[in-house]
Order: sequence, then C-alpha cells, then structure tokens
Amino acid sequence: MNGAALDAASILTVERLTPPAFSPFGDVIAFGAASKVFPINHGTTMRHHGLARVEVGAGHGLISLARAEPRTLPFAVTMLERHPLGSQAFIPLSKTSYLIVVAESPEHPPRCFLATHGEGVNYHAGTWHHPLIALDQVSDFLIVDRGGDGPNCDEANLPRTWWIESATISS
Amino acid sequence: MNGAALDAASILTVERLTPPAFSPFGDVIAFGAASKVFPINHGTTMRHHGLARVEVGAGHGLISLARAEPRTLPFAVTMLERHPLGSQAFIPLSKTSYLIVVAESPEHPPRCFLATHGEGVNYHAGTWHHPLIALDQVSDFLIVDRGGDGPNCDEANLPRTWWIESATISS
Repeated sequence: MNGAALDAASILTVERLTPPAFSPFGDVIAFGAASKVFPINHGTTMRHHGLARVEVGAGHGLISLARAEPRTLPFAVTMLERHPLGSQAFIPLSKTSYLIVVAESPEHPPRCFLATHGEGVNYHAGTWHHPLIALDQVSDFLIVDRGGDGPNCDEANLPRTWWIESATISS
Repeated sequence: MNGAALDAASILTVERLTPPAFSPFGDVIAFGAASKVFPINHGTTMRHHGLARVEVGAGHGLISLARAEPRTLPFAVTMLERHPLGSQAFIPLSKTSYLIVVAESPEHPPRCFLATHGEGVNYHAGTWHHPLIALDQVSDFLIVDRGGDGPNCDEANLPRTWWIESATISS
C-alpha cells in the first residue's frame, strides 16, 4: 500500500458466491446448491447429493486438512496457481467467511467471490485460483484433491497487481 | 427399551476415536492424525496431508452434504451396512460429537467409537458400519464417497440387538 490510495481500476469487484456465477471455475459445496436431495438412513438424514465430482485422472483422491492464517485487507493479488491433473475442493470446517479469487487465465482480470456462511468450493482441474484467503481468524478447511505421479501445480505471476479492498459484496 | 433394564452383555463399550484403534475399519480425519504436515501457500497455511484416500474402483469420487437428525440414547443397533466398491468419509462441519459403530462382520460384536471434537472418519471399502448417529442436535456432515455403476450398498440385520447406553467413553 505504501500509504497511497489504491488505483480504482485495480480493485476487484467482490461477488456473491453462487453456483451459476462460479460455474466457469468449479462447484459450490453448500446446502441449497444440490440438484438431488433425498433421504437416507431410514429417513433420519437428508443427503444433498453430488455437489462436486473429484477429478483425479490417473491418480487418486486424497482427503487432507488445512489450517490457514487469516490475511489482512487490502490484499494484493499478484499470482495464481492451477492443478492441471485434478480438481481441488476446500470446505471450511466452521461458518468462516473467506475470499476466492479465480481467473480464466493469468492474463485475464481475476474474479473475486466472498463465501459468507461456510460454503465450500471445488476448483475444476486446471482452474486458475489464488491460494486460500482466510479472513478474521485462523481457519480450518477440509481439502479433497488429487494424489499421484506427475507435476500438478503451475504457478504464474500476474502481469499486474490486483487489489481486494474489503470483504464486502459489491452491490 | 420397554421399561426393562438393558442386559449388560448387550451394551457396547464406547471407545475413544484414535487412528490406531480405528485402523481396522478406516481412517480418522483430524488435526494430529496426519503423518505428513507441511506449509503451503508461501507459509500461510499448514497442510495436514493425506489423512484418507478416496477408494472408488472403476467409479469416481463425489462430494455431498448430509443433514442428520440427532438420535436418542439408549440407542439400539440392529443393522449395519457396507459399500463394497468404495470408501465413504463423513466429516462434521462443526465441533459436533457423534457415535461411530463398525464391525468386522454382522456376526461379530460391533465396536462403538465416540468422536468428541468434530473428528471425521473414512470407512474403507467394504467396512461394515452403522448409518450416522448424530447426537444432541441436527448435525451437518460432508460426505466423500463413490459414484458410478454397480450395486454399492449391502445391508444386514444383526442376529441380536446391541445397545449404546450413553455417549460416554468407557474408562
């Protein structure tokens, strides 16, 4: 920041995370997002089915945990990464808010989404995305992604810096 | 119950959920259970890696949600189920306690574990287990299991009824 005001043209719009808006990049993992909902366990449980598919190619699916330090705002977006060989899902283990930054490519302006009630996301294989941007507190996430051979992480520095000014959905 | 006292020989011991105790049946998904822990995202996040592997055979991994009604105690265990073609993981989305009942086979005495701080479990393919036994409150879980063709759920009524008397770990 260096004490200077942010260039308005470099500030990302913060969008509400919805399945249609996020569909070019992946899936939203949330109650209300499933197209199939049905009872299981003799009617004691409702299953919200198939919110995301785990893409692993010739690899295998892995379940891991992550504990993320919160980031401070304004936040500079200077790089993105992608996993060409598999999907990658992050599901918060509390009702934490966090920010999601994705892009068609490192050359395209990124899009920024705010997850406000603990929704999870699943990045499709190859989706350019920023590493976790936790807010407010140390935040735990479940990760479902791919294990197996082959290089599965590309990183790209962006040709310019983008800024997230605040975690408020733009009206 | 019918007002009668439970037969002590039919009451299941409630065990603490630990990776070694649960290893014949599956994995524990919890901080502290990972053998590999390393920083990611330029040091802002610690990844607790590979707590469970998603087994899907010729199918694919699916991420779903479940909203489970709480059960009341004492609880009668009269049936178990298994998924021969894939693993099935349940990860609570809050610090909920819940009970896990598993067995070597429907003819073996089941074992009962109490998850006390929101730990998740991953049943290995073919593990006999009871459907979700949420406690105290309506509880949300993430499910990671298998989609694809082929019959993937066997149910078995047990030759006798077992009881969970209370959600207290036996000393």
